[in-house]
Amino acid sequence: MEISARNKIKGVVKEIKKGEVAALVKIEGSTPTAISAVITKESVEELGIKVGEEVTAVIKATEVMISKE
Amino acid sequence: MEISARNKIKGVVKEIKKGEVAALVKIEGSTPTAISAVITKESVEELGIKVGEEVTAVIKATEVMISKE
Amino acid sequence: MEISARNKIKGVVKEIKKGEVAALVKIEGSTPTAISAVITKESVEELGIKVGEEVTAVIKATEVMISKE
Amino acid sequence: MEISARNKIKGVVKEIKKGEVAALVKIEGSTPTAISAVITKESVEELGIKVGEEVTAVIKATEVMISKE
Amino acid sequence: MEISARNKIKGVVKEIKKGEVAALVKIEGSTPTAISAVITKESVEELGIKVGEEVTAVIKATEVMISKE
Amino acid sequence: MEISARNKIKGVVKEIKKGEVAALVKIEGSTPTAISAVITKESVEELGIKVGEEVTAVIKATEVMISKE
Repeated sequence: MEISARNKIKGVVKEIKKGEVAALVKIEGSTPTAISAVITKESVEELGIKVGEEVTAVIKATEVMISKE
Repeated sequence: MEISARNKIKGVVKEIKKGEVAALVKIEGSTPTAISAVITKESVEELGIKVGEEVTAVIKATEVMISKE
Repeated sequence: MEISARNKIKGVVKEIKKGEVAALVKIEGSTPTAISAVITKESVEELGIKVGEEVTAVIKATEVMISKE
Repeated sequence: MEISARNKIKGVVKEIKKGEVAALVKIEGSTPTAISAVITKESVEELGIKVGEEVTAVIKATEVMISKE
Repeated sequence: MEISARNKIKGVVKEIKKGEVAALVKIEGSTPTAISAVITKESVEELGIKVGEEVTAVIKATEVMISKE
Repeated sequence: MEISARNKIKGVVKEIKKGEVAALVKIEGSTPTAISAVITKESVEELGIKVGEEVTAVIKATEVMISKE
Protein backbone atom coordinates (compact mmCIF):
# COMPACT_ATOMS: atom_id res chain seq x y z
CA MET A 1 0.00 0.00 0.00
CA GLU A 2 1.24 3.45 -0.90
CA ILE A 3 -0.22 6.58 0.69
CA SER A 4 -0.29 10.15 -0.60
CA ALA A 5 1.05 11.56 2.71
CA ARG A 6 4.44 13.06 1.83
CA ASN A 7 6.22 12.66 5.16
CA LYS A 8 7.32 9.32 6.60
CA ILE A 9 9.80 9.25 9.46
CA LYS A 10 11.06 5.90 10.75
CA GLY A 11 11.78 5.38 14.40
CA VAL A 12 11.37 3.22 17.47
CA VAL A 13 8.51 3.55 19.97
CA LYS A 14 9.94 4.87 23.25
CA GLU A 15 6.83 5.49 25.28
CA ILE A 16 3.07 4.95 25.09
CA LYS A 17 0.68 6.76 27.37
CA LYS A 18 -2.96 5.74 27.11
CA GLY A 19 -5.98 7.81 28.08
CA GLU A 20 -9.57 6.65 27.77
CA VAL A 21 -9.87 7.68 24.11
CA ALA A 22 -6.52 9.10 23.00
CA ALA A 23 -3.01 7.75 23.35
CA LEU A 24 0.31 9.59 23.12
CA VAL A 25 3.03 7.60 21.35
CA LYS A 26 6.61 8.86 21.43
CA ILE A 27 8.95 7.75 18.69
CA GLU A 28 12.71 8.20 18.61
CA GLY A 29 14.26 8.59 15.17
CA SER A 30 17.80 7.67 14.11
CA THR A 31 18.88 11.22 14.90
CA PRO A 32 17.96 13.37 17.86
CA THR A 33 14.56 13.70 16.19
CA ALA A 34 11.77 12.71 18.57
CA ILE A 35 8.21 12.58 17.25
CA SER A 36 5.02 12.66 19.33
CA ALA A 37 1.76 11.33 17.91
CA VAL A 38 -1.70 11.53 19.42
CA ILE A 39 -3.77 8.69 17.97
CA THR A 40 -6.75 6.75 19.29
CA LYS A 41 -6.10 4.16 21.98
CA GLU A 42 -7.99 1.83 19.67
CA SER A 43 -5.33 2.26 16.96
CA VAL A 44 -2.54 1.52 19.41
CA GLU A 45 -4.31 -1.68 20.37
CA GLU A 46 -5.42 -2.81 16.91
CA LEU A 47 -1.99 -2.25 15.38
CA GLY A 48 -0.41 -3.76 18.50
CA ILE A 49 2.00 -0.83 18.90
CA LYS A 50 4.55 -1.61 21.65
CA VAL A 51 7.58 0.11 23.15
CA GLY A 52 10.74 -0.97 21.31
CA GLU A 53 8.97 -1.60 18.03
CA GLU A 54 9.92 -0.04 14.69
CA VAL A 55 7.18 2.18 13.31
CA THR A 56 6.84 5.03 10.83
CA ALA A 57 5.36 8.42 11.65
CA VAL A 58 3.20 9.53 8.70
CA ILE A 59 2.32 13.20 8.22
CA LYS A 60 0.32 14.89 5.43
CA ALA A 61 2.24 17.85 3.98
CA THR A 62 -0.69 20.23 4.52
CA GLU A 63 -0.26 19.70 8.29
CA VAL A 64 3.35 20.90 8.39
CA MET A 65 4.13 24.50 9.33
CA ILE A 66 7.47 26.24 9.04
CA SER A 67 9.12 28.47 11.60
CA LYS A 68 12.19 30.64 11.27
CA GLU A 69 14.38 32.18 13.98
CA MET B 1 7.80 32.40 21.82
CA GLU B 2 7.02 28.83 22.74
CA ILE B 3 4.32 26.84 20.94
CA SER B 4 2.32 23.83 22.12
CA ALA B 5 3.05 21.86 18.92
CA ARG B 6 5.11 18.87 20.08
CA ASN B 7 7.15 18.23 16.95
CA LYS B 8 9.93 20.50 15.70
CA ILE B 9 12.34 19.21 13.09
CA LYS B 10 15.25 21.41 12.01
CA GLY B 11 16.47 21.41 8.45
CA VAL B 12 17.52 23.38 5.43
CA VAL B 13 15.14 24.50 2.66
CA LYS B 14 15.99 22.56 -0.51
CA GLU B 15 13.18 23.55 -2.83
CA ILE B 16 10.25 25.94 -2.99
CA LYS B 17 7.48 25.53 -5.54
CA LYS B 18 4.88 28.28 -5.59
CA GLY B 19 1.34 27.99 -6.89
CA GLU B 20 -1.18 30.84 -6.90
CA VAL B 21 -2.31 30.19 -3.30
CA ALA B 22 -0.27 27.31 -1.92
CA ALA B 23 3.45 26.67 -1.90
CA LEU B 24 5.33 23.41 -1.41
CA VAL B 25 8.50 23.78 0.66
CA LYS B 26 10.95 20.86 0.88
CA ILE B 27 13.25 20.70 3.86
CA GLU B 28 16.24 18.39 4.28
CA GLY B 29 17.03 17.36 7.86
CA SER B 30 20.43 16.39 9.28
CA THR B 31 19.59 12.75 8.54
CA PRO B 32 18.01 11.30 5.44
CA THR B 33 14.77 12.81 6.75
CA ALA B 34 13.12 15.01 4.15
CA ILE B 35 10.02 16.97 5.12
CA SER B 36 7.44 18.47 2.74
CA ALA B 37 5.21 21.31 3.88
CA VAL B 38 2.28 22.86 2.03
CA ILE B 39 1.82 26.38 3.37
CA THR B 40 0.39 29.53 1.82
CA LYS B 41 2.51 31.37 -0.73
CA GLU B 42 1.86 34.40 1.46
CA SER B 43 3.68 32.75 4.39
CA VAL B 44 6.67 31.88 2.21
CA GLU B 45 6.89 35.52 1.19
CA GLU B 46 6.17 37.15 4.57
CA LEU B 47 8.68 34.95 6.39
CA GLY B 48 11.10 35.37 3.48
CA ILE B 49 11.71 31.60 3.22
CA LYS B 50 14.52 30.91 0.75
CA VAL B 51 16.38 27.85 -0.51
CA GLY B 52 19.47 27.23 1.65
CA GLU B 53 17.96 28.74 4.77
CA GLU B 54 17.66 27.00 8.14
CA VAL B 55 14.06 26.53 9.20
CA THR B 56 12.10 24.32 11.56
CA ALA B 57 9.17 22.14 10.51
CA VAL B 58 6.49 22.37 13.21
CA ILE B 59 3.82 19.66 13.52
CA LYS B 60 0.99 19.30 16.06
CA ALA B 61 1.00 15.82 17.62
CA THR B 62 -2.67 15.23 16.74
CA GLU B 63 -1.67 15.39 13.04
CA VAL B 64 0.81 12.51 13.24
CA MET B 65 -0.27 8.99 12.29
CA ILE B 66 1.68 5.80 12.86
CA SER B 67 2.18 2.97 10.41
CA LYS B 68 3.68 -0.43 10.98
CA GLU B 69 5.01 -2.97 8.46
CA MET C 1 1.58 -1.74 5.91
CA GLU C 2 -1.07 -0.83 8.44
CA ILE C 3 -1.78 2.76 9.41
CA SER C 4 -3.31 4.16 12.58
CA ALA C 5 -5.82 6.31 10.63
CA ARG C 6 -9.25 4.91 11.55
CA ASN C 7 -11.18 5.76 8.39
CA LYS C 8 -10.64 4.06 5.05
CA ILE C 9 -13.25 4.48 2.31
CA LYS C 10 -12.80 2.61 -0.97
CA GLY C 11 -13.85 4.15 -4.23
CA VAL C 12 -12.99 4.92 -7.82
CA VAL C 13 -11.29 8.13 -8.98
CA LYS C 14 -13.81 10.17 -10.99
CA GLU C 15 -11.95 13.41 -11.54
CA ILE C 16 -8.52 14.92 -11.00
CA LYS C 17 -7.91 18.64 -11.18
CA LYS C 18 -4.31 19.76 -10.87
CA GLY C 19 -3.08 23.17 -9.76
CA GLU C 20 0.58 24.16 -9.51
CA VAL C 21 1.01 22.69 -6.02
CA ALA C 22 -2.28 21.12 -4.97
CA ALA C 23 -4.58 18.70 -6.75
CA LEU C 24 -8.24 17.94 -6.11
CA VAL C 25 -9.11 14.26 -6.49
CA LYS C 26 -12.76 13.19 -6.51
CA ILE C 27 -13.58 9.64 -5.52
CA GLU C 28 -16.94 7.91 -5.93
CA GLY C 29 -17.71 5.24 -3.35
CA SER C 30 -19.95 2.20 -3.79
CA THR C 31 -22.85 4.24 -2.41
CA PRO C 32 -23.84 7.80 -3.18
CA THR C 33 -20.81 8.75 -1.06
CA ALA C 34 -18.49 11.07 -2.95
CA ILE C 35 -15.20 12.03 -1.32
CA SER C 36 -13.00 15.01 -2.25
CA ALA C 37 -9.32 15.05 -1.34
CA VAL C 38 -6.85 17.89 -1.69
CA ILE C 39 -3.37 16.39 -1.89
CA THR C 40 -0.13 17.58 -3.50
CA LYS C 41 0.13 17.33 -7.27
CA GLU C 42 3.39 15.50 -6.55
CA SER C 43 1.49 12.72 -4.73
CA VAL C 44 -0.94 12.34 -7.62
CA GLU C 45 2.00 11.92 -9.96
CA GLU C 46 4.21 9.72 -7.77
CA LEU C 47 1.37 7.33 -6.93
CA GLY C 48 0.22 7.49 -10.54
CA ILE C 49 -3.39 8.24 -9.55
CA LYS C 50 -5.65 8.10 -12.64
CA VAL C 51 -9.35 8.48 -13.33
CA GLY C 52 -11.04 5.07 -13.19
CA GLU C 53 -8.60 3.62 -10.71
CA GLU C 54 -9.54 2.03 -7.37
CA VAL C 55 -8.14 3.96 -4.42
CA THR C 56 -8.85 4.32 -0.72
CA ALA C 57 -9.56 7.62 0.99
CA VAL C 58 -7.76 7.61 4.36
CA ILE C 59 -8.83 9.98 7.14
CA LYS C 60 -7.49 10.33 10.71
CA ALA C 61 -10.34 10.22 13.25
CA THR C 62 -9.26 13.51 14.86
CA GLU C 63 -10.09 15.26 11.55
CA VAL C 64 -13.74 14.16 11.49
CA MET C 65 -16.45 16.47 12.81
CA ILE C 66 -20.08 15.60 13.43
CA SER C 67 -23.10 17.66 12.50
CA LYS C 68 -26.71 17.15 13.48
CA GLU C 69 -29.85 18.60 11.92
CA MET D 1 -26.07 26.92 7.30
CA GLU D 2 -23.74 25.74 4.58
CA ILE D 3 -20.11 24.86 5.28
CA SER D 4 -17.11 24.83 2.95
CA ALA D 5 -16.07 21.30 4.04
CA ARG D 6 -16.45 19.14 0.92
CA ASN D 7 -17.19 15.79 2.53
CA LYS D 8 -20.43 14.96 4.32
CA ILE D 9 -21.27 11.32 5.06
CA LYS D 10 -24.61 10.49 6.67
CA GLY D 11 -24.92 7.68 9.16
CA VAL D 12 -26.23 6.49 12.49
CA VAL D 13 -24.28 6.71 15.75
CA LYS D 14 -23.37 3.17 16.83
CA GLU D 15 -21.11 3.78 19.80
CA ILE D 16 -19.86 6.65 21.95
CA LYS D 17 -16.85 6.30 24.22
CA LYS D 18 -16.10 9.27 26.43
CA GLY D 19 -12.73 10.15 27.97
CA GLU D 20 -12.12 13.16 30.19
CA VAL D 21 -11.56 15.56 27.26
CA ALA D 22 -12.03 13.60 24.04
CA ALA D 23 -14.80 11.28 22.90
CA LEU D 24 -14.76 8.65 20.17
CA VAL D 25 -18.00 8.49 18.17
CA LYS D 26 -18.55 5.62 15.75
CA ILE D 27 -20.97 6.15 12.90
CA GLU D 28 -22.33 3.46 10.59
CA GLY D 29 -23.16 4.60 7.05
CA SER D 30 -25.76 3.12 4.72
CA THR D 31 -23.04 0.92 3.25
CA PRO D 32 -20.32 -1.02 5.01
CA THR D 33 -18.69 2.38 5.56
CA ALA D 34 -17.94 2.96 9.23
CA ILE D 35 -16.59 6.33 10.29
CA SER D 36 -14.75 7.13 13.54
CA ALA D 37 -14.60 10.68 14.85
CA VAL D 38 -12.61 12.01 17.79
CA ILE D 39 -14.32 15.17 19.01
CA THR D 40 -14.47 16.87 22.40
CA LYS D 41 -16.68 15.30 25.06
CA GLU D 42 -18.16 18.79 25.35
CA SER D 43 -19.39 18.65 21.73
CA VAL D 44 -20.99 15.26 22.27
CA GLU D 45 -22.86 16.69 25.24
CA GLU D 46 -23.77 20.09 23.79
CA LEU D 47 -25.09 18.61 20.55
CA GLY D 48 -26.73 15.81 22.55
CA ILE D 49 -25.24 13.10 20.33
CA LYS D 50 -26.75 9.70 21.24
CA VAL D 51 -26.44 6.14 19.97
CA GLY D 52 -29.11 5.48 17.33
CA GLU D 53 -29.26 9.07 16.17
CA GLU D 54 -28.77 10.23 12.57
CA VAL D 55 -25.72 12.47 12.18
CA THR D 56 -23.41 13.60 9.41
CA ALA D 57 -19.65 13.15 9.46
CA VAL D 58 -18.07 16.33 8.06
CA ILE D 59 -14.50 16.29 6.70
CA LYS D 60 -12.46 19.10 5.09
CA ALA D 61 -10.94 17.96 1.78
CA THR D 62 -7.43 18.99 2.84
CA GLU D 63 -7.60 16.31 5.55
CA VAL D 64 -8.21 13.41 3.16
CA MET D 65 -5.29 11.29 1.96
CA ILE D 66 -5.37 8.70 -0.80
CA SER D 67 -3.82 5.26 -0.74
CA LYS D 68 -3.40 2.78 -3.55
CA GLU D 69 -2.71 -0.96 -3.40
CA MET E 1 -27.53 22.35 11.42
CA GLU E 2 -25.20 22.24 14.38
CA ILE E 3 -21.59 21.13 14.05
CA SER E 4 -19.22 19.69 16.66
CA ALA E 5 -16.42 22.16 15.74
CA ARG E 6 -15.94 24.30 18.87
CA ASN E 7 -14.72 27.51 17.28
CA LYS E 8 -16.90 29.84 15.21
CA ILE E 9 -15.70 33.37 14.50
CA LYS E 10 -17.98 35.76 12.60
CA GLY E 11 -16.57 38.25 10.18
CA VAL E 12 -16.76 39.85 6.77
CA VAL E 13 -14.91 38.60 3.70
CA LYS E 14 -12.22 41.15 2.79
CA GLU E 15 -10.33 39.37 0.05
CA ILE E 16 -10.51 36.22 -2.05
CA LYS E 17 -7.55 34.93 -4.00
CA LYS E 18 -8.21 31.93 -6.23
CA GLY E 19 -5.64 29.43 -7.46
CA GLU E 20 -6.44 26.47 -9.69
CA VAL E 21 -7.46 24.22 -6.79
CA ALA E 22 -7.17 26.21 -3.58
CA ALA E 23 -8.46 29.63 -2.64
CA LEU E 24 -7.34 31.95 0.16
CA VAL E 25 -10.22 33.79 1.84
CA LYS E 26 -9.46 36.61 4.28
CA ILE E 27 -12.05 37.47 6.86
CA GLU E 28 -12.08 40.54 9.11
CA GLY E 29 -13.68 40.05 12.53
CA SER E 30 -15.38 42.70 14.65
CA THR E 31 -12.06 43.26 16.42
CA PRO E 32 -8.59 43.50 14.97
CA THR E 33 -8.88 39.73 14.47
CA ALA E 34 -8.19 38.76 10.87
CA ILE E 35 -8.65 35.13 9.86
CA SER E 36 -7.18 33.45 6.78
CA ALA E 37 -8.74 30.27 5.41
CA VAL E 38 -7.45 28.04 2.63
CA ILE E 39 -10.41 26.17 1.18
CA THR E 40 -11.07 24.68 -2.26
CA LYS E 41 -11.91 27.09 -5.05
CA GLU E 42 -14.93 24.83 -5.59
CA SER E 43 -16.24 25.67 -2.10
CA VAL E 44 -15.84 29.39 -2.70
CA GLU E 45 -17.89 29.03 -5.86
CA GLU E 46 -20.55 26.61 -4.59
CA LEU E 47 -21.19 28.65 -1.45
CA GLY E 48 -21.00 31.83 -3.52
CA ILE E 49 -18.55 33.47 -1.11
CA LYS E 50 -18.03 37.13 -2.08
CA VAL E 51 -16.06 40.08 -0.69
CA GLY E 52 -18.24 42.06 1.71
CA GLU E 53 -20.32 39.08 2.76
CA GLU E 54 -20.83 37.93 6.35
CA VAL E 55 -19.42 34.47 6.96
CA THR E 56 -18.28 32.39 9.91
CA ALA E 57 -14.82 30.85 10.22
CA VAL E 58 -15.22 27.35 11.69
CA ILE E 59 -12.28 25.60 13.37
CA LYS E 60 -12.13 22.19 15.09
CA ALA E 61 -10.56 22.49 18.57
CA THR E 62 -7.96 19.79 17.82
CA GLU E 63 -6.50 22.11 15.15
CA VAL E 64 -5.77 24.97 17.56
CA MET E 65 -2.30 25.34 19.09
CA ILE E 66 -1.30 27.69 21.89
CA SER E 67 1.79 29.86 22.05
CA LYS E 68 3.15 31.85 24.94
CA GLU E 69 5.66 34.69 24.97
CA MET F 1 10.57 32.93 16.16
CA GLU F 2 8.10 33.44 13.37
CA ILE F 3 5.75 30.70 12.24
CA SER F 4 4.00 30.20 8.90
CA ALA F 5 0.58 29.66 10.54
CA ARG F 6 -1.54 32.60 9.34
CA ASN F 7 -3.92 32.93 12.27
CA LYS F 8 -2.91 34.19 15.71
CA ILE F 9 -5.60 35.24 18.17
CA LYS F 10 -4.58 36.72 21.52
CA GLY F 11 -6.56 36.01 24.64
CA VAL F 12 -6.56 34.99 28.27
CA VAL F 13 -6.83 31.40 29.49
CA LYS F 14 -10.22 30.98 31.19
CA GLU F 15 -10.33 27.26 31.84
CA ILE F 16 -8.11 24.19 31.57
CA LYS F 17 -9.52 20.69 31.72
CA LYS F 18 -6.97 17.89 31.74
CA GLY F 19 -7.57 14.30 30.65
CA GLU F 20 -4.91 11.59 30.73
CA VAL F 21 -3.47 12.52 27.32
CA ALA F 22 -5.39 15.53 26.01
CA ALA F 23 -6.28 18.83 27.63
CA LEU F 24 -8.96 21.34 26.67
CA VAL F 25 -7.86 24.95 27.07
CA LYS F 26 -10.44 27.74 26.76
CA ILE F 27 -9.25 31.17 25.80
CA GLU F 28 -11.26 34.38 25.95
CA GLY F 29 -10.35 37.04 23.38
CA SER F 30 -10.75 40.79 23.71
CA THR F 31 -14.14 40.48 22.01
CA PRO F 32 -16.85 37.93 22.60
CA THR F 33 -14.57 35.51 20.73
CA ALA F 34 -13.91 32.38 22.76
CA ILE F 35 -11.46 29.83 21.41
CA SER F 36 -11.18 26.17 22.46
CA ALA F 37 -7.97 24.25 21.89
CA VAL F 38 -7.34 20.54 22.41
CA ILE F 39 -3.61 20.08 22.96
CA THR F 40 -1.61 17.45 24.83
CA LYS F 41 -1.61 17.61 28.62
CA GLU F 42 2.18 17.51 28.25
CA SER F 43 2.14 20.83 26.33
CA VAL F 44 0.00 22.47 28.99
CA GLU F 45 2.50 21.41 31.61
CA GLU F 46 5.73 22.11 29.70
CA LEU F 47 4.58 25.59 28.65
CA GLY F 48 3.18 26.12 32.14
CA ILE F 49 -0.20 27.31 30.80
CA LYS F 50 -2.34 28.63 33.66
CA VAL F 51 -5.77 30.21 34.00
CA GLY F 52 -5.45 34.01 33.79
CA GLU F 53 -2.41 33.94 31.58
CA GLU F 54 -2.09 35.71 28.22
CA VAL F 55 -1.60 33.27 25.36
CA THR F 56 -2.05 33.22 21.60
CA ALA F 57 -4.17 30.69 19.74
CA VAL F 58 -2.31 29.70 16.57
CA ILE F 59 -4.19 28.13 13.63
CA LYS F 60 -2.87 27.05 10.20
CA ALA F 61 -5.02 28.54 7.41
CA THR F 62 -5.62 25.13 5.82
CA GLU F 63 -7.52 24.13 8.98
CA VAL F 64 -10.09 26.93 8.74
CA MET F 65 -13.47 26.27 7.10
CA ILE F 66 -16.07 28.86 6.17
CA SER F 67 -19.79 28.66 6.75
CA LYS F 68 -22.52 30.91 5.47
CA GLU F 69 -26.08 31.31 6.70
